Amino acid sequence: MTRPYRGVWPVAPTPFTETGDLDLEGQKRVLDCMVDQGVDGICILANYSEQFLLSDAERETLTRLCLEHVAGRVPVIVTCSHFSTGIVVERCRAAAAMGAAMIMLMPPYHGAALKAALPQAREQFARAAEAGLPIMVQDAPLSGVDLPVPFLAQLAREVPNLAYFKIETPQAAAKLRALIAEGGEAIEGPFDGEEAITLMADLDAGATGTMSSALLPDLIKPVVDAHRGGDRAAALDGYARILPLINYENRQCGLRACKTVMMEGGVIASDHVRHPTVPLHPETRAGLLELARMADPLALRWGR
Amino acid sequence: MTRPYRGVWPVAPTPFTETGDLDLEGQKRVLDCMVDQGVDGICILANYSEQFLLSDAERETLTRLCLEHVAGRVPVIVTCSHFSTGIVVERCRAAAAMGAAMIMLMPPYHGAALKAALPQAREQFARAAEAGLPIMVQDAPLSGVDLPVPFLAQLAREVPNLAYFKIETPQAAAKLRALIAEGGEAIEGPFDGEEAITLMADLDAGATGTMSSALLPDLIKPVVDAHRGGDRAAALDGYARILPLINYENRQCGLRACKTVMMEGGVIASDHVRHPTVPLHPETRAGLLELARMADPLALRWGR
Repeated sequence: MTRPYRGVWPVAPTPFTETGDLDLEGQKRVLDCMVDQGVDGICILANYSEQFLLSDAERETLTRLCLEHVAGRVPVIVTCSHFSTGIVVERCRAAAAMGAAMIMLMPPYHGAALKAALPQAREQFARAAEAGLPIMVQDAPLSGVDLPVPFLAQLAREVPNLAYFKIETPQAAAKLRALIAEGGEAIEGPFDGEEAITLMADLDAGATGTMSSALLPDLIKPVVDAHRGGDRAAALDGYARILPLINYENRQCGLRACKTVMMEGGVIASDHVRHPTVPLHPETRAGLLELARMADPLALRWGR
Repeated sequence: MTRPYRGVWPVAPTPFTETGDLDLEGQKRVLDCMVDQGVDGICILANYSEQFLLSDAERETLTRLCLEHVAGRVPVIVTCSHFSTGIVVERCRAAAAMGAAMIMLMPPYHGAALKAALPQAREQFARAAEAGLPIMVQDAPLSGVDLPVPFLAQLAREVPNLAYFKIETPQAAAKLRALIAEGGEAIEGPFDGEEAITLMADLDAGATGTMSSALLPDLIKPVVDAHRGGDRAAALDGYARILPLINYENRQCGLRACKTVMMEGGVIASDHVRHPTVPLHPETRAGLLELARMADPLALRWGR
């Protein structure tokens, strides 16, 4: 795949054993399943990958394992966010050396109150970009940092390699539209995220890529392709058919959804999540699987 | 020192070189200076220690170095906060094995939005306490988690080893008073924090310890001692004399204040802070040092 990158770039979940250890064989199977889903690229160590529940050593282990195992079949984005710019830069260099295609970064934040001001956020992004890979700025509420459109557009114009934007703030479509209008060609990749729960509006606004989960990218891809090909009716119809599952994932389950569906589909052995995340309530799990069976994504069949 | 621990337990700053590396020799000098300040105990890896700008490996290096270097001269509290309960437990076990006297923990949080619910916070604290050390719960706005007094009092009564509370929410004195009233003897150590900017009100409310910074604990200790000894006039007078410096530290400088005073006093070679924290503006620095010279804490003279 060549730049500009576009299409469906889901986040890989991080599977654990029942006792909470990394399940490295399961991680490989997740990646193989995703390649079979026809994804255009894969993002690792994102929030949906439970990055906030991993040690530094585990991040390094996973980065190396995922890049070696994917082995260029699709490009891989490595999330390198940390409050410390020094640690971000180290992570970016390591990811570049291991063969990552892109880096994803939230602006620097810690806890409910520590947020870098915009000049420092810009400097962190710029120093990260010196590792030589394209940077995707993740604009997500979790950071607590407000990234105004003029700031993002200026970043895109002035910081080499900073060209991708994953917008998952409320009313993401309006922000994508404004960003594309203000940034022009510098906005090489306007993406959305958040399990693709706003996909149609975001595609209408000009998004060229989506970072969904790995639950049903094989069913999201035809929507993106139809929209791009001008077949609006097919896009609307396809999206309407998968939205109940996406909605349930996003609003009821969060990152636990993909793990549960992949366990049910024999991709991974356990849908364990690390404490303090709590497991899905059995009724929520049943509700998820009911909708998953109706949509029938590959993840529900892949290992059976 | 024997339990119940009380008195002045300042946070040790983490010194860096001008290029942002750990300054391990400087760290030892910080600890030696603190012992000479007459502190009752030392807390490491707290927020004032820039814990959010350290890698896991650096935390481990610092824990080992500090405990070995203090070598029992005073008890040491090790901050072990992390969103992941598994990582918290590992850090607690390691700190216990290395000779820590106590563990400090914020409730689990990540970013602006991820906050464990109270049952999960309780479980994380309880599992941390199984390492066998007393636990100090840090109730600070940075976590974004609201810890109601009945919840904290119940923790103290029901979770073995969970006995210390560092309250640094707004109106800390009122919360300390309510906590002591509701928790009774289970509240072995009601402490305040936040550079001791609310010290007199907190002592009046029943606080038996304070976790200030290491900027001027030698001047804070006489206030605590006078208050405890019933010499209210001396406590009020002593606090009034140091409050301008504490106020400037807390409201203008944050964690940069202690480093700058310690550099000026020859304790450490650099007051470098890691990006995205920005250095003090020269005028703010001058304002800090003006007040520090008037108060004349040991940190300003120790290495000269």
